[in-house]
Amino acid sequence: MNPADSVLLTDLYQLTMLQTYHAQCMHETAVFELFVRRLPEQRGFLLAAGLEQALDYLQNLRFQAAELDWLASTGRFSADFIAALADFRFTGTVEALPEGTVFFANEPILRVIAPLPQAQLVESRLINILHLQTLIASKAARCVLAASGKLLVDFGMRRAHGAEAALLAARANYLSGFTGTATVLAGMRFAIPLFGTMAHSLVQAHEHEADAFAHFAEAQPGNVVLLLDTYDTEAAARTLVQLAPHLSQHGIAIKGVRIDSGDLAEQAWRVRDILDAGGLRQVTILGSGDLDEEQIAALLAAGAPYDGFGVGTRLDAATDAPTLDMVYKLQEYAGTPRRKRSTGKATWPGRKQIYRQHDADGLFSGDCISLENAPQAGEPLLQPVMHAGQRLAPAESLASIRERVRQQLAALPATLRANRLDAPYPVDIAPELRALAAQLDRETH
Amino acid sequence: MNPADSVLLTDLYQLTMLQTYHAQCMHETAVFELFVRRLPEQRGFLLAAGLEQALDYLQNLRFQAAELDWLASTGRFSADFIAALADFRFTGTVEALPEGTVFFANEPILRVIAPLPQAQLVESRLINILHLQTLIASKAARCVLAASGKLLVDFGMRRAHGAEAALLAARANYLSGFTGTATVLAGMRFAIPLFGTMAHSLVQAHEHEADAFAHFAEAQPGNVVLLLDTYDTEAAARTLVQLAPHLSQHGIAIKGVRIDSGDLAEQAWRVRDILDAGGLRQVTILGSGDLDEEQIAALLAAGAPYDGFGVGTRLDAATDAPTLDMVYKLQEYAGTPRRKRSTGKATWPGRKQIYRQHDADGLFSGDCISLENAPQAGEPLLQPVMHAGQRLAPAESLASIRERVRQQLAALPATLRANRLDAPYPVDIAPELRALAAQLDRETH
Repeated sequence: MNPADSVLLTDLYQLTMLQTYHAQCMHETAVFELFVRRLPEQRGFLLAAGLEQALDYLQNLRFQAAELDWLASTGRFSADFIAALADFRFTGTVEALPEGTVFFANEPILRVIAPLPQAQLVESRLINILHLQTLIASKAARCVLAASGKLLVDFGMRRAHGAEAALLAARANYLSGFTGTATVLAGMRFAIPLFGTMAHSLVQAHEHEADAFAHFAEAQPGNVVLLLDTYDTEAAARTLVQLAPHLSQHGIAIKGVRIDSGDLAEQAWRVRDILDAGGLRQVTILGSGDLDEEQIAALLAAGAPYDGFGVGTRLDAATDAPTLDMVYKLQEYAGTPRRKRSTGKATWPGRKQIYRQHDADGLFSGDCISLENAPQAGEPLLQPVMHAGQRLAPAESLASIRERVRQQLAALPATLRANRLDAPYPVDIAPELRALAAQLDRETH
Repeated sequence: MNPADSVLLTDLYQLTMLQTYHAQCMHETAVFELFVRRLPEQRGFLLAAGLEQALDYLQNLRFQAAELDWLASTGRFSADFIAALADFRFTGTVEALPEGTVFFANEPILRVIAPLPQAQLVESRLINILHLQTLIASKAARCVLAASGKLLVDFGMRRAHGAEAALLAARANYLSGFTGTATVLAGMRFAIPLFGTMAHSLVQAHEHEADAFAHFAEAQPGNVVLLLDTYDTEAAARTLVQLAPHLSQHGIAIKGVRIDSGDLAEQAWRVRDILDAGGLRQVTILGSGDLDEEQIAALLAAGAPYDGFGVGTRLDAATDAPTLDMVYKLQEYAGTPRRKRSTGKATWPGRKQIYRQHDADGLFSGDCISLENAPQAGEPLLQPVMHAGQRLAPAESLASIRERVRQQLAALPATLRANRLDAPYPVDIAPELRALAAQLDRETH
């Protein structure tokens, strides 16, 4: 069974707290907001992603009979609490940033308004879902900005953290502007364009590299991308030049080559020269091998003749910042705003809205976090997406999300586009929100 | 559908290479080995984990009708190739390190011997499975060494990368010696002991912290662990001291408290003093909040009175080293050893074995990587686990793996136990293996 489909993919304390709420009949409306407390020091902005899977989770949340039996067998829960769980459904309201929206620290990207037990139980998995895709989409957006329109393919499946991460990383990368993925299942599930080349093992399994190239080309004549660096990259490029006329006689054109090791800039210049001298100017060069946005930017700045990049490990595990400080906090219960005051982890209370301002050129010029009932200048970003446990609209297409990302990245201030981390984006806290927090601090003992 | 159950959770190039092998009738026996090329700079050793899920994957590998239909619809594959995939089964032999075995760079932890297409197709998902649990188990082992026998609980579900990572991180942590997990589904699936406390939201949802504590205690009288830092940690501890006699009259004992923010050492001393002065010497203190092995070691070295720790984000995403350079490389095809020579990524050819030596005290004193047919002194580590596509033994119990880990960690040289990374463990390459590599380099053009 898919762990993603089990309501028991949660933390034990959610269930013990629910048992407390059940015993005390605490079913009043709770308001929780999900946000990132601090940006990782390597990020100037984040990109919201994963809402589609989050809404799917909320709408389908059920305790199965086998799960209830197992919970009963642990001896931790009362019979009437377990009986109540059998009827558990999520009936709340959700507001959220559309997927692909740029956001910053302390800005709520999702708000849940529901009876306290419902809003509480979903904390762990909601974070788990939104954290993963937001993390990867934010890293992918950096690569998209660095690649200046070159082809970008997600190669990271094998070192993503497990099956769901592999599949959803492909989705997050694509919605951020990647051209496609090598992960076949993402092609089937999400209609994401698939790209692939060949592995060193295919070359190694042949006695002669030329045979490996010819056999691979004959087997998929429409999509011939050959890997050059199994033994000697330049020798492989020369082999290719010799092979091309023979393939051409059979109507097979070589589409591209991939270089996966060594000095990637140097190798690309040499391969480009060999291909061009051999009349293969139309053959593209794809680079791969522990790439990320910094190396892509450096290769392009150096003028290395790459037409595209395969990005894997550093993207699908976001290795430079593999987690976000994403939390889900109670902001209101039974009509009263609430505030946590733990050292270094205090929260802004109440139902909030983000207002984003634009400058004369249409670029983002500053955000203000305010209370929902104290509007500020600018565009409000949180939108209703679920009511009474039902989505308000069908799933948004990836094409639509990609277009939003394109517009959002184009509207970033130049410092954020350039990944200059010394010039943080201005996010204000509205006076009304500061006043509410101060008032709560005075009232709570 | 569970992405983990789909054979299409693989890279496109596996399928295009398979189409090439199919067209060329390349079905001879291939030998692939899975290993880590370099240890992360933060690790002196790794712990093998995930074999159970890897064998499960191999044994159940099938193309479903809907998957074959979809592959046909892409126009990338020939009809007779797709027809052949319908009968695809894994019929190979697998040798591996038992789960919980300590290993080092370049040491094969799994070998697949199978017809080339079978051995090739499984590369992406085998790495995906073994990478995840090996990554987390290796981090968890560091925490276990640092915690010197204190209670350790996995709190990381929410920031693990997706559903499968959350579930299997709990398994990896537990097999490495953690006491248990907060992830409920891991309790149901793997019988891992569950631990949980309460969240700040439960306190915030009450008007008075004392009511929150009392209500929580009454709802699960056998397992009362209270969170102290929602507003003021010391005030909460004093509230608890006042509350304890009333709870005691109803037969409810407070088992422990948790501190999740602020200066964790300082807070623990103050809370311990308040509890002890209030007659609550038996109440344990659990620490949490962005902990890892270094902070646990520092807290214990400072004498902070913690009885246990909840470890989350930094563990379940292995944030200091979130990926391993784990690869799966062709070492032999059709009876001939093979070697990749890419710059910086050359491999040792042939079927290999790891031989581990022990010193007079029984501690690991050095490994030698040799060819299977050129034995060296020491204990051979790779063992047969699957033949003709069938497991050779039932799944090993987690209790048995935990006992192996206990023995392995006890046999580590002191430098590795202390995480001293300036004294790497000695791993030799046997002369026979060096000779084979040199011979292949001479023969391959």
